[in-house]
Amino acid sequence: MALNLFLPPTAISPSPSKVPVLFYLSGLTCTGDNCAEKGFFQAYASKHGIAVVYPDTSPRGAKVEGEDESWDFGSGAGFYVDATEENWRSNYNMYTYITEELPKALFSSFGVLDGERVSITGHSMGGHGALILFLKNPGKYRSVSALAPITNPINCPWGQKAFTGYFGAENKSKWAEHDATELLKRWKGPFETLIDVGTGDNFYKNGQLLPENFEAAAKEKGVEKGVSVRYQKDYDHSYFFISTFAEDHVNYHAKFLLK
Amino acid sequence: MALNLFLPPTAISPSPSKVPVLFYLSGLTCTGDNCAEKGFFQAYASKHGIAVVYPDTSPRGAKVEGEDESWDFGSGAGFYVDATEENWRSNYNMYTYITEELPKALFSSFGVLDGERVSITGHSMGGHGALILFLKNPGKYRSVSALAPITNPINCPWGQKAFTGYFGAENKSKWAEHDATELLKRWKGPFETLIDVGTGDNFYKNGQLLPENFEAAAKEKGVEKGVSVRYQKDYDHSYFFISTFAEDHVNYHAKFLLK
Repeated sequence: MALNLFLPPTAISPSPSKVPVLFYLSGLTCTGDNCAEKGFFQAYASKHGIAVVYPDTSPRGAKVEGEDESWDFGSGAGFYVDATEENWRSNYNMYTYITEELPKALFSSFGVLDGERVSITGHSMGGHGALILFLKNPGKYRSVSALAPITNPINCPWGQKAFTGYFGAENKSKWAEHDATELLKRWKGPFETLIDVGTGDNFYKNGQLLPENFEAAAKEKGVEKGVSVRYQKDYDHSYFFISTFAEDHVNYHAKFLLK
Repeated sequence: MALNLFLPPTAISPSPSKVPVLFYLSGLTCTGDNCAEKGFFQAYASKHGIAVVYPDTSPRGAKVEGEDESWDFGSGAGFYVDATEENWRSNYNMYTYITEELPKALFSSFGVLDGERVSITGHSMGGHGALILFLKNPGKYRSVSALAPITNPINCPWGQKAFTGYFGAENKSKWAEHDATELLKRWKGPFETLIDVGTGDNFYKNGQLLPENFEAAAKEKGVEKGVSVRYQKDYDHSYFFISTFAEDHVNYHAKFLLK
């Protein structure tokens, strides 16, 4: 598995100090390169002394039948779940990779990374990943944010296709366990996040993201004050959108990572 | 010819006002897309209310024999000159395109661009372009800066190949007319620029950029105080280098464009 790791100057200067870590999960079709090159999180992470990890979005070259047939399923589309369906379950375990395997390898290889101060963010499918990893692992991450996230995959075409493929069409309880909106309904205690969505984003307009469903769940649970969903006028789904709000997201996580 | 144009909020808000313009000239192999996506000038130009123009680096599909044979000559490698050699002179006129044709088309199509307040910058071959366009057209541009520019093409392999191809091997006076170091030796009056070069840049280390020659010419002319060449420790030739110093370059031009 390839990835990119950004280390801020404080991690490499003559007297390096332990630095907190922000995981950035990418969206459909992306690798760990896209946001490292175009998202511009590093400029702001550098100022705060935060490391940024950009993992890949799926296994590559696993030789699973059909893995390269769609842009929204298989390669580049791991959806941050551990698959249970026969063809996929040996290789497509992005949930375990991001929450366990990668941190273990990374924190043991780079002693300067502070494994006790970790936050998570992501875009689109990666925003879904960030939200479910946070909600499924209370206390593991200090904070979560997302850009144009898929917030209710069991009710959108992308999510339905992916969960059918990875979990099977019938296993609806598995589906709900990997749906941010469903997970929020079961969440106990306070909850806080920052979410940006562009109103010119075609995937938002076509019902793939469904942030209103996530907001409704927050209201149902009485945590709506902590859920800041900002509808950014006319912004689309692109890296221009991401890079424009990267500063706000890094600053948001810095509040939790540096206190 | 394709290009990208960034308009700052002040140019499009309910009561738009005329905005100054920064031309960014790209390096070998690039189009107008690379820096628009990865250079991050827009974030800082937005704050200052400056428009940014990203032209292409050569004609495309002109069907000149051999135009696609090398990455450093022909397509993607126009070198911002008007070619005189027979095969190239009909199409490869990037000098006239950047200084006349494009501004004319652009300023007449976008009334919000202030054609009286224009500055120029660029990277690598585009840094060469920025410097020679400024030096050949006193008063046309308010300021010039460059990132890892080719400053003395007549003495480096890239420049020698390009000028041989576009001007012929014998026409050395034409060569000198398109060489920033030679042009600086003939410059009259004060001169000021900001140049960044990474000390880990292999093209610098292999003698393609030769900023020391440009500095020596500045000293010879007594304008060395205005020529700020910053050797940035360990930085390479990449867009990570460009995006890191984009803020300084935009701020530099803002001093001239906004006064």
